[in-house]
Amino acid sequence: MWDRFLRACRREPVDATPVWFMRQAGRYMPEYRAIRQKRTLLEICKAPELATEVTLQPVRALGVDAAILFADILLPLEPMGAPFEFAAGEGPRFFESVRDADAVERLRLIDPEDSLAYVLSAIRMIRAELDGKVPLIGFAGAPFTLASYLVEGGKSASFAVTKRLMYREPAVWSALMGKLAEVVRRYLRAQVAAGAQAVQLFDSWVGELSPIDYREYVMPHVRHILSDVQSLGVPVIHFGTGTAMLLDVMKEAGGTVIGVDTFTPLDWARQRLGSSVALQGNLEPLLLGAPRDLLARRVDDVLARAGTSPGHIFNLGHGILPETPPEAVKYVVDYVHERTAR
Amino acid sequence: MWDRFLRACRREPVDATPVWFMRQAGRYMPEYRAIRQKRTLLEICKAPELATEVTLQPVRALGVDAAILFADILLPLEPMGAPFEFAAGEGPRFFESVRDADAVERLRLIDPEDSLAYVLSAIRMIRAELDGKVPLIGFAGAPFTLASYLVEGGKSASFAVTKRLMYREPAVWSALMGKLAEVVRRYLRAQVAAGAQAVQLFDSWVGELSPIDYREYVMPHVRHILSDVQSLGVPVIHFGTGTAMLLDVMKEAGGTVIGVDTFTPLDWARQRLGSSVALQGNLEPLLLGAPRDLLARRVDDVLARAGTSPGHIFNLGHGILPETPPEAVKYVVDYVHERTAR
Repeated sequence: MWDRFLRACRREPVDATPVWFMRQAGRYMPEYRAIRQKRTLLEICKAPELATEVTLQPVRALGVDAAILFADILLPLEPMGAPFEFAAGEGPRFFESVRDADAVERLRLIDPEDSLAYVLSAIRMIRAELDGKVPLIGFAGAPFTLASYLVEGGKSASFAVTKRLMYREPAVWSALMGKLAEVVRRYLRAQVAAGAQAVQLFDSWVGELSPIDYREYVMPHVRHILSDVQSLGVPVIHFGTGTAMLLDVMKEAGGTVIGVDTFTPLDWARQRLGSSVALQGNLEPLLLGAPRDLLARRVDDVLARAGTSPGHIFNLGHGILPETPPEAVKYVVDYVHERTAR
Repeated sequence: MWDRFLRACRREPVDATPVWFMRQAGRYMPEYRAIRQKRTLLEICKAPELATEVTLQPVRALGVDAAILFADILLPLEPMGAPFEFAAGEGPRFFESVRDADAVERLRLIDPEDSLAYVLSAIRMIRAELDGKVPLIGFAGAPFTLASYLVEGGKSASFAVTKRLMYREPAVWSALMGKLAEVVRRYLRAQVAAGAQAVQLFDSWVGELSPIDYREYVMPHVRHILSDVQSLGVPVIHFGTGTAMLLDVMKEAGGTVIGVDTFTPLDWARQRLGSSVALQGNLEPLLLGAPRDLLARRVDDVLARAGTSPGHIFNLGHGILPETPPEAVKYVVDYVHERTAR
């Protein structure tokens, strides 16, 4: 069933639970590493034929039920006026961090059709190559997660600079989040127009906030994005980690599917969220490196907690890690399909 | 009321909600920095008169309702056979990581009365200096958190090496956790014998585990410690971060007080845990750097969620951060006392 993933997003009955993996295209795959040896991550993102190839690798190798665009959540920040590089083994480093009203003022409200045309070309190319085999998911980083990179100048451990700005300069914070939200809204809209059949909003680090802070400093900006993108009629997956206590406010902010992290049992998430959204998740990524019997037991546990009502998309609780054995990933795809065949 | 803190731990009525702060002695205090300029962290820990001075600084400066021993959770690992250093601005680095059966085998089951005598001397000295002014809290790191440092060789972002060992070598994992638990049990017992009037078990990174993993790989070892230490009759605070979904299993593992992180509203934690334990927490540490009116509103929110039944100890959701203004910390102590005076 080619549209198993889309049906599950809409909480419609499916022939088997759909499976895809966050970071299913990446360093754990030898096919990907072969390309990465010759190109940087950003070079791959910016060359539509390479991005297409890399996006399709896991679809061919694993039999997953959805392709996800190969891109990076930080791509929109460069044309906005915040260039960065990936320091070896260190994650992104921004050449200048954004910490005051002037720096926020200088950020540009880009037109993705122009500044991110390479992403939209990749989407069109991937759709043509997929030829209806499985749906294509587009994605973007959410404003809080993007803001944290800009403010800290890279990945942070404590998010101290981000939170200090948020608490001490609420007007600067709001201006920054507002600009990011508007760019992300345009970007996701453009991805759907180019052919993305669903989109995921990655708010990977939002679990660093308490519910009261999320509601005050983040929710309005996420809602600005999602209320618009949901009106396009495609499923919208709203994902973060460390979000057990945020799930209900995240749902309030938007999303037809809520992505659940590894730390939050799916049955608990279902109870918390009710039956009006689909759930995606949530196997511990490192279990892919565990002995097969333990892995199988834990997949069973995820499926049991997901229950038998429609509306579950099997995934990890976060992205696949570099040293993951590809055959374990393939094993999980087949195992989930087999165990849930109706 | 000198024993406000101990009474709240036992869920007895108090004249005002007790306040103390994790890392209340530390770099944010000029008095502490004056000593740190001349001594390393480990030198302070190992010199009982310096550890005593540093422990007492926040009691004098802030009017908190408890002193907490100045020490580091990693201290027991050095005599166990795993020496480390604090690399500048980087956190601890172990000279050798512990990743296989042989390395676990080599770890020594130390006698704290011997190997950690300097900590016990500090406790006796602090008790004498405090002279009943406020109670003294002792503490130790919990086995998972300690194991993660040993296995990773320092602080980790993904805990990948730790979890791989846990999943792939359950016997090695169990032996490592068993040794750590036995040492921590002895260490906390010795601290109580030396005069600690309460103890806190810091499982700072345990929120990296799902409830199912906590139950299987961690809980028996924590229980080994806490069932014994609780029998001594002193309050035992069981603390971790990222633990919303772990609170009930942590309570099952032990603790007369459960430490609640910033991300988990106290009213929700109370509902989850029932009234048989006291709760400690949970102001966002970075709010100490926020404008006074926002800080006051958020303290009010914590107090409102804690409710009016006995059994709340006011604290942060994690430790005080280095750039915190000391006067904001003092402000919170006075504000909480004032707002909760009965």
